Amino acid sequence: MTRDDALALDAADPLSGFRERFVLPDGVLYLDGNSLGALPKAVAARLDAVVRAEWGESLIRGWNDHGWIEAPARIGAKIARLIGAEPHEVAAADSTSINLFKLAAGAAALRPGRTTILSEPGNFPTDLYMLQGLERFLDGRVQVKTVPADEIAAAIDEDTAAVVLTHVHYKSGRRHDMAAITAAAHAKGALALWDLSHSTGVLKVDLNGCGADLAVGCGYKYLNGGPGAPAFLFVAERHQAAIQTPLTGWMGHAEPFVFDDLYRPAPGVRRQLCGTPPILGLAALECALEVLLEADLGAIEAKAAALGDLFIAEVEARCGDAGLALVSPRDGRARGGHVSFAHPDDGYAMVQALIAEGVIGDFRAPDVLRFGFSPLYLRYVDVWDSAHKLAEIVAARRWDQPEFKRRASVT
Amino acid sequence: MTRDDALALDAADPLSGFRERFVLPDGVLYLDGNSLGALPKAVAARLDAVVRAEWGESLIRGWNDHGWIEAPARIGAKIARLIGAEPHEVAAADSTSINLFKLAAGAAALRPGRTTILSEPGNFPTDLYMLQGLERFLDGRVQVKTVPADEIAAAIDEDTAAVVLTHVHYKSGRRHDMAAITAAAHAKGALALWDLSHSTGVLKVDLNGCGADLAVGCGYKYLNGGPGAPAFLFVAERHQAAIQTPLTGWMGHAEPFVFDDLYRPAPGVRRQLCGTPPILGLAALECALEVLLEADLGAIEAKAAALGDLFIAEVEARCGDAGLALVSPRDGRARGGHVSFAHPDDGYAMVQALIAEGVIGDFRAPDVLRFGFSPLYLRYVDVWDSAHKLAEIVAARRWDQPEFKRRASVT
Repeated sequence: MTRDDALALDAADPLSGFRERFVLPDGVLYLDGNSLGALPKAVAARLDAVVRAEWGESLIRGWNDHGWIEAPARIGAKIARLIGAEPHEVAAADSTSINLFKLAAGAAALRPGRTTILSEPGNFPTDLYMLQGLERFLDGRVQVKTVPADEIAAAIDEDTAAVVLTHVHYKSGRRHDMAAITAAAHAKGALALWDLSHSTGVLKVDLNGCGADLAVGCGYKYLNGGPGAPAFLFVAERHQAAIQTPLTGWMGHAEPFVFDDLYRPAPGVRRQLCGTPPILGLAALECALEVLLEADLGAIEAKAAALGDLFIAEVEARCGDAGLALVSPRDGRARGGHVSFAHPDDGYAMVQALIAEGVIGDFRAPDVLRFGFSPLYLRYVDVWDSAHKLAEIVAARRWDQPEFKRRASVT
Repeated sequence: MTRDDALALDAADPLSGFRERFVLPDGVLYLDGNSLGALPKAVAARLDAVVRAEWGESLIRGWNDHGWIEAPARIGAKIARLIGAEPHEVAAADSTSINLFKLAAGAAALRPGRTTILSEPGNFPTDLYMLQGLERFLDGRVQVKTVPADEIAAAIDEDTAAVVLTHVHYKSGRRHDMAAITAAAHAKGALALWDLSHSTGVLKVDLNGCGADLAVGCGYKYLNGGPGAPAFLFVAERHQAAIQTPLTGWMGHAEPFVFDDLYRPAPGVRRQLCGTPPILGLAALECALEVLLEADLGAIEAKAAALGDLFIAEVEARCGDAGLALVSPRDGRARGGHVSFAHPDDGYAMVQALIAEGVIGDFRAPDVLRFGFSPLYLRYVDVWDSAHKLAEIVAARRWDQPEFKRRASVT
């Protein structure tokens, strides 16, 4: 493909108008929207209004007058449109880690007597860590067992309480077959809990179409909600009345402002709320979601695959002998929105050299160079240019300098 | 006291200069800073800079370049100055509810074999609810027992794992004797976990002086961090190496960016972190803290007591036969920053009528009118005016209208 070919694809792109809705710094090609989404231009003004006009002028009255108290449910209903859920099945709350703990504990309690939670080695660390915390905390009543991705369906048995997997793998970008694994879980009476962090907002997720039981996801990746944005959770309607979380805070109480001493769970997904909702973070997330919801999710998914295909083709054509090996599935339909290559020794330095030249991807230990393609603000020509910049850096060994080998605290 | 007397007190107030640092709407006397602190003027610009310059321009690089990753510890160190803690003993994270769960679970695990967590009836509901969630979750291995405030010290025994109390009661404003109860807990080998939500920023809390083991607190009351601001937690240095929380997320891992499958706790208070830090909320909280930290905490505590004394005296002098009964301790040294009166039938309507006339207090079911006195932005004359407005409303029965009796979702 030539650069002009890439420009032609941009000219025909039905999503091209969304790019101007985002702040994109000069001189930067941003291939890390799968880690932290870019700033939608509307967010700064919205947040300023929430701070000055709502908090500043309404003070405590904002909880009623500006709908703060309803924000978790209202924003949840917006996220529901992206993941094939009903509006009343989703809430925005806490962090992905906390939400995973709530629902994994809830799943274990829905399947008493079953002692295994199944996941895969190399799942996103916080998911495994939260499950390990649950295991320790329950004194081994429930144990986390990890088996490789392609053995999971076969490993589910009558002792499995839940399968807990990340739909799109944070490192490889590989997409699990949500429908098939959920069906395999149900066939043995187990529940399926999906972490949608790397799929929400870039893929047409269909939780109810797949029969999924529970899900969690992240607000700051393809949802563009800002650094550390509130996360979300999904509980299928059929489980809402029975599921119990250990994190029973006042916002999940049936009548929080009655100030009873005894916890009584709220109906529906609201019982999954815990502490006071983080209004500033929620306001940024809601504003960002409104931009995303204007776009067609099918077009987003198709463009993400096309951008990934383009990147793979150009990198493989131009970095042939550099030792970069494709980690992600070659088939765009089997990936999420990012593509990874491994390099045995120098991946970290290569990523730092790229960043120094304005192409921002990221490194994932021990050996992965990861590139995310957020379709709302990335152009085909950006991806073409990024691949060519990587080829230049590799050909000239510009990564081979001490400054690119020093590790920062967040890589 | 005359209104001129109140004005004279303002003229002599060493904190009077702080009022102009806050946004205070025209026509409002804000007596609810104990529920949601007013907006510090500096926050809007700070947040705008974090959004536009940090998130917008630095994107993912913000985690290193703008110190986002260090925000929980850095802000914790600032809060430490308000609560008699060492900088490395405090972190800003999650909600008060979540933090209480972490530390209560951690306390129970530090005292294996002990089966009781002791609290008081009428403690702030989310504290009781989180403890009840812990109890259910542990299948009764630990049970929550509540005894009235003045019987707590005597109720601690060799079966008590921890005493979990709110330092200043959210409804009555009554202050627990932190040193005495902590000592009573230690005498029986139990731990003391304090909720500082209604004391941090308005009292000179001295956790280490009292020998406290653990504490949590709220960011949006006297810390003025904004609606749903991140909360904080304290773990005394002597417990940091041993305490284990069930909420073991990646930010509490010894090396989060190594992406190991196995959780290994970080040293120090950092192991209490869980998910990705909420940067927008933390930025607002940090900016608000910087204003508060310019003030002398002793002067703040003294002024809070004086404002409460003034309010009590004026209300009692002028609403004598209205049926308002003081709920809070009469001695300012036994209170936090708020004062409550009970009214058997009409407290809710009285609060609504006050709000309609610009005096914002709040109602706490079933019968409490609550008034908070945040010393950085409230004047003596505001408190005098508020008491006189209440007296007018009561004398003329202006609260006795249907519009003031309809309950809103948040009261």
